[in-house]
Amino acid sequence: MYDVAKIRADFPILSREVNGKPLVYLDNGASAQKPQVVIDAITQAYSHEYANVHRGLHYLSNLATDKYEAVRGTIARFLNAGSEDDIIFNSGTTEGINMVAYGWAMPRLQAGDEIVLSVMEHHANIVPWHFLRERQGVVLKWVDVDSTGALDPQAVIDAIGPKTKLVAVTHMSNVLGTHVDVKAICAGAHAKGVPVLVDGSQAAVHMPVDVQDLGVDFYAITGHKLYGPSSSGAIYVHPDRMREMQPFMGGGDMIREVTKDTVTYNDPPMKFEAGTPGIVQMIGLGVALDYMMGHGMQAIADHEASLRDYAVQRLGGLNWLQVQGTTPDKGAIFSFTLDGAAHAHDVSTILDKKGVAVRAGHHCAGPLMEHLGLTATCRASFGMYNTTQEVDALVDALELAHDLFA
Amino acid sequence: MYDVAKIRADFPILSREVNGKPLVYLDNGASAQKPQVVIDAITQAYSHEYANVHRGLHYLSNLATDKYEAVRGTIARFLNAGSEDDIIFNSGTTEGINMVAYGWAMPRLQAGDEIVLSVMEHHANIVPWHFLRERQGVVLKWVDVDSTGALDPQAVIDAIGPKTKLVAVTHMSNVLGTHVDVKAICAGAHAKGVPVLVDGSQAAVHMPVDVQDLGVDFYAITGHKLYGPSSSGAIYVHPDRMREMQPFMGGGDMIREVTKDTVTYNDPPMKFEAGTPGIVQMIGLGVALDYMMGHGMQAIADHEASLRDYAVQRLGGLNWLQVQGTTPDKGAIFSFTLDGAAHAHDVSTILDKKGVAVRAGHHCAGPLMEHLGLTATCRASFGMYNTTQEVDALVDALELAHDLFA
Repeated sequence: MYDVAKIRADFPILSREVNGKPLVYLDNGASAQKPQVVIDAITQAYSHEYANVHRGLHYLSNLATDKYEAVRGTIARFLNAGSEDDIIFNSGTTEGINMVAYGWAMPRLQAGDEIVLSVMEHHANIVPWHFLRERQGVVLKWVDVDSTGALDPQAVIDAIGPKTKLVAVTHMSNVLGTHVDVKAICAGAHAKGVPVLVDGSQAAVHMPVDVQDLGVDFYAITGHKLYGPSSSGAIYVHPDRMREMQPFMGGGDMIREVTKDTVTYNDPPMKFEAGTPGIVQMIGLGVALDYMMGHGMQAIADHEASLRDYAVQRLGGLNWLQVQGTTPDKGAIFSFTLDGAAHAHDVSTILDKKGVAVRAGHHCAGPLMEHLGLTATCRASFGMYNTTQEVDALVDALELAHDLFA
Repeated sequence: MYDVAKIRADFPILSREVNGKPLVYLDNGASAQKPQVVIDAITQAYSHEYANVHRGLHYLSNLATDKYEAVRGTIARFLNAGSEDDIIFNSGTTEGINMVAYGWAMPRLQAGDEIVLSVMEHHANIVPWHFLRERQGVVLKWVDVDSTGALDPQAVIDAIGPKTKLVAVTHMSNVLGTHVDVKAICAGAHAKGVPVLVDGSQAAVHMPVDVQDLGVDFYAITGHKLYGPSSSGAIYVHPDRMREMQPFMGGGDMIREVTKDTVTYNDPPMKFEAGTPGIVQMIGLGVALDYMMGHGMQAIADHEASLRDYAVQRLGGLNWLQVQGTTPDKGAIFSFTLDGAAHAHDVSTILDKKGVAVRAGHHCAGPLMEHLGLTATCRASFGMYNTTQEVDALVDALELAHDLFA
């Protein structure tokens, strides 16, 4: 039984007030709050169990190493990776995708080679590919979404030509909530011999993910959206791609031997983890993922589906509000604009006065905003601890904003 | 008055036992412990003040942004940078040096161009340059240290030839403790038109650093060695070099506008900070630096100089122990080997049984170990909270190890 009140009590920040009102935190798409178990794990690590990992032989170093390395198995379980060796630790999706751009794509792609992207990618899954366009003449091919925000997998597959070397798509739009059929895209792309990178920043937060079933080559997640510490994250890399990848960052830990004239690299995944890592953050991320799995990813998905359905109904009743993204199986992410002159930033400021935290802007999705013909939206994005009462609070605050700007 | 007992009381882990003995933590060169104020700042941030930064307009986002961005000024003050805009946030020295390698050196250096390095660099300041050697034929030129571990600045300057494009040196050896005269190197290199990158990972922990007085072009620091959170850090970049640098990682925050066909970058330093940053880690690092500056960097340096002098005397009394690095103004970092068959790893294991945490191995300094003709040393590295009694505890444990292996 999914007990949202009990879950809320696990997140200390949710009991605070903002501007004299109870906090209604609907900015989960940008970053999620942290349960007490994660905060406690961080405190415990720094207060009693801290040292650098891997290279020590003393008690604290071994203890920290054991706790840190155990997270690799936790992430492998979370994503159903075939092996924990398929998991590379990093600071989040941005670093993960940049690693693939620099370590896998840069040495392989020539001028004129193509990367297929959906128009609703986050900048983290666009700018690293723009680098390849700017620096080595790679061509970006864009696939549009339809008026509901749906991405036809066949349209992505059809965009793959003889010069296409990679498909890079999100699993869930951070603006529209669209759930992308990554499995169909992978099957079609692989039939044409093209690997698929998936930005799982949003999807992994909201539903069970099975990288083997999806058939992805790269799957990037970001810890701070997964109720974990900031600057934690990981990327799943299929063993075949792992073998093809050259190191991204150089430094300690990722080498076996360094001389004046030569360098011998460590085995994957260590080969791709340079320097002292985010030890305590990764320990915290492991606790966060265990927390989520403890409640059940399907149970979280079901809870958020009920929030989505309720929000669709309530927001649908506001005939002066336009929601972007109306696919029926979308995540509980609602980007919207209000009729009239009200700018998204002004709307969010009004909502904030009522304690309702939403984000306003382009949501790091420039091409999508251009496709939608908008410069900014407000976005209310829900998480595992949100409630239907908070949907009501959002609607009440929106009605106030509408009255003010009418 | 520097009150080391009071300082020790600020670090909760220092009161714990290891293997039934009081912890004697002498592994500060690998990573430092954290004062309660840093742990409290992290807890406060996650429990009451957390949201993503920069792009929000709601109360928590503004609060987190204010706290996060204030750290830029703290770091600028810590390094005496001319402007907080010269400070790029990152996860530590490894990322900082890789950013310079990819963003500044890679597009500028041609096959046959040279980078001058000292033989005592850490792998973080070697492997990124090996990438340029492997990938584009850059030549690494090495400058040796003398038998005391001293690096003659003139030898570095003399190594600069017409094809030299960069000097990359440490400010303090993580193995020998050698304090490098970076100011003289910068003056000589600049007279030849060559910029200087300085690895400040160790030096910034142990003495006042003034990047303007030193005249450096790049100065990298790492938060977890500065009593701050893991995965925090920064790099100072001179404005002239900042202008020459292309972006390293691509993603949100580092752009002004992204379309399907173009990308317009943000102004520095944001141009070099992609994606959701290490928000809480950087807030914690700011608190750690304030803590250090509150005690005074010169006072910390003086305290550690007295520890160094005492350790030189005590370790010098052990005629079966060889200390590597004997320059008089070195940092309180002691790498040593024992006469006879005892392997460094075995020695460190014995010390650990007595609660004394030291590191054993190559210390991520392959070329230096080769230069010294060693495969591994034990390293005892001191910090602001260590005491002369801990030097005694180290010596007692070493005597036990010597007896066991004799």
